[in-house]
Amino acid sequence: MQPLAHTFPLGFIGLGVMGGSMAGHLLNAGYPLNIFNRTRAKADALIAKGAYFCESAAEVARSSSVVFTMLGMPSDVEEIYLGPPGLLQNAKPGTLLIDMTTSSPALAQKIFTEARQREIASLDAPVSGGDIGAREARLSIMVGGEASDFERALPLLKILGKTIVLQGGAGSGQHTKLANQIAIAGAMLGVCEALGYAKRAGLDPHRVLESIGSGAAGSWSLTNLAPRMLAGNFEPGFLVKHLVKDIRLALDSGAILNARTPTVSLAGELYEELLAAGGAEQGTQALFRLFDSTP
Amino acid sequence: MQPLAHTFPLGFIGLGVMGGSMAGHLLNAGYPLNIFNRTRAKADALIAKGAYFCESAAEVARSSSVVFTMLGMPSDVEEIYLGPPGLLQNAKPGTLLIDMTTSSPALAQKIFTEARQREIASLDAPVSGGDIGAREARLSIMVGGEASDFERALPLLKILGKTIVLQGGAGSGQHTKLANQIAIAGAMLGVCEALGYAKRAGLDPHRVLESIGSGAAGSWSLTNLAPRMLAGNFEPGFLVKHLVKDIRLALDSGAILNARTPTVSLAGELYEELLAAGGAEQGTQALFRLFDSTP
Repeated sequence: MQPLAHTFPLGFIGLGVMGGSMAGHLLNAGYPLNIFNRTRAKADALIAKGAYFCESAAEVARSSSVVFTMLGMPSDVEEIYLGPPGLLQNAKPGTLLIDMTTSSPALAQKIFTEARQREIASLDAPVSGGDIGAREARLSIMVGGEASDFERALPLLKILGKTIVLQGGAGSGQHTKLANQIAIAGAMLGVCEALGYAKRAGLDPHRVLESIGSGAAGSWSLTNLAPRMLAGNFEPGFLVKHLVKDIRLALDSGAILNARTPTVSLAGELYEELLAAGGAEQGTQALFRLFDSTP
Repeated sequence: MQPLAHTFPLGFIGLGVMGGSMAGHLLNAGYPLNIFNRTRAKADALIAKGAYFCESAAEVARSSSVVFTMLGMPSDVEEIYLGPPGLLQNAKPGTLLIDMTTSSPALAQKIFTEARQREIASLDAPVSGGDIGAREARLSIMVGGEASDFERALPLLKILGKTIVLQGGAGSGQHTKLANQIAIAGAMLGVCEALGYAKRAGLDPHRVLESIGSGAAGSWSLTNLAPRMLAGNFEPGFLVKHLVKDIRLALDSGAILNARTPTVSLAGELYEELLAAGGAEQGTQALFRLFDSTP
């Protein structure tokens, strides 16, 4: 079977730091690509490489066989997919919609159900790996939806990422991503608090890292973010306001599931405090600011 | 200068899982070794290899140039060092006492000060790396005390561990170990909560690990303990009751330092709950029990 992806162009909506890199990979792989972004300037580099800029998300939906979205907030996902004139109202039957935004599992399930009624397929496929992972096509892509739709998407997803796993039915990709964020939140709390304690105790925190960096206290956060924390480098990386969004999603979803979430609750309290202290546009490692005080 | 360590035997007090392995390494390196343990049976293997079993800690102190201690609780450290008939009352001037127990920084400072008044040297030198690290002499040893005493101890510590760092004055080794335990507590909370959330969401948690194991959520705990959690394998590893001890030490020390410790506070609440549920003798990964419930 010739996949539909080869007979009609692909579409990509949401050309921020992540989406821009990902759309570029699809274009470099030789696929005709329809693109749309609210801020048109962000599409310039892709247009120069041959992408076709549509006047609306609806136009992308009407003229593409597979549409990727990489948006900001769940409210954006809801509007673009479900609102008039949204993707579901405009996509032809047989179109595959793939939302790679980190968003609500419940919303992903709602989109799946409503899409299905229109004979449109949908996958939730959020990613981890950040801007570098997107640029280097080394993302981990966590997918929820039907196995047949996953198989159809897989050759395209392989252009964008390295670890691509179908986690289960609609919403499962989002659930997996939230589990990922919960684990990150715990590790980040531990690293910030450990370094804060070390400084209060009058230790040289760099020397502390020599002792604790490669043992049971080790983590991606400790290896990659602790040195930035100690250097006072709070450049993003991954924005505080985006992690706060994910934490709220995890808390909402955890409440629906009746899951126990004291760690991400604590992370939420502290990151809200950081937001209030003007940290929204900093990297998530800026949480260290709340723990950093020399005696 | 011929180090004193070569002219008189070494001493080792506390021959549990960790201490037994460590004393064995010193013996294998060719040092005459005086040993003591409350339960004499634990000394049998070392006696068979040539160690001399003393009738008391005081006798070890009187007849050794360098005395290592690897005890259980800070109260044990206080009794063995400061109580009559303790190490300080019985060690000759010039003796070096090295406490490798994870214990209180404040107690380490008190021992240092009182030892010094008797012309006895002391180091606090807790370790990470667990029973395997002790057995394979790959421990990370975090040292507090005087630089000259550290230099004197270094050839011996190199027999026991791999990463050996002088962190600062008396108590700094203990402070560093507590920072290590704080980082571990955060990572452990994140891993348990992420897996608990995944199960509540109806995901296959092993498949979730495929997606999240090697990215920004990665940690020693995720790699090494998550598979045990999912297998229901709560064998120690590192005992819950020992981590609870360390958490209490971190909270006490954090309060003295006026450090912010919400993460280790939360870990303390949850591990106390696990203690109450009969988890004292399980491995620390048993914290997952509190988060594990399928919908």
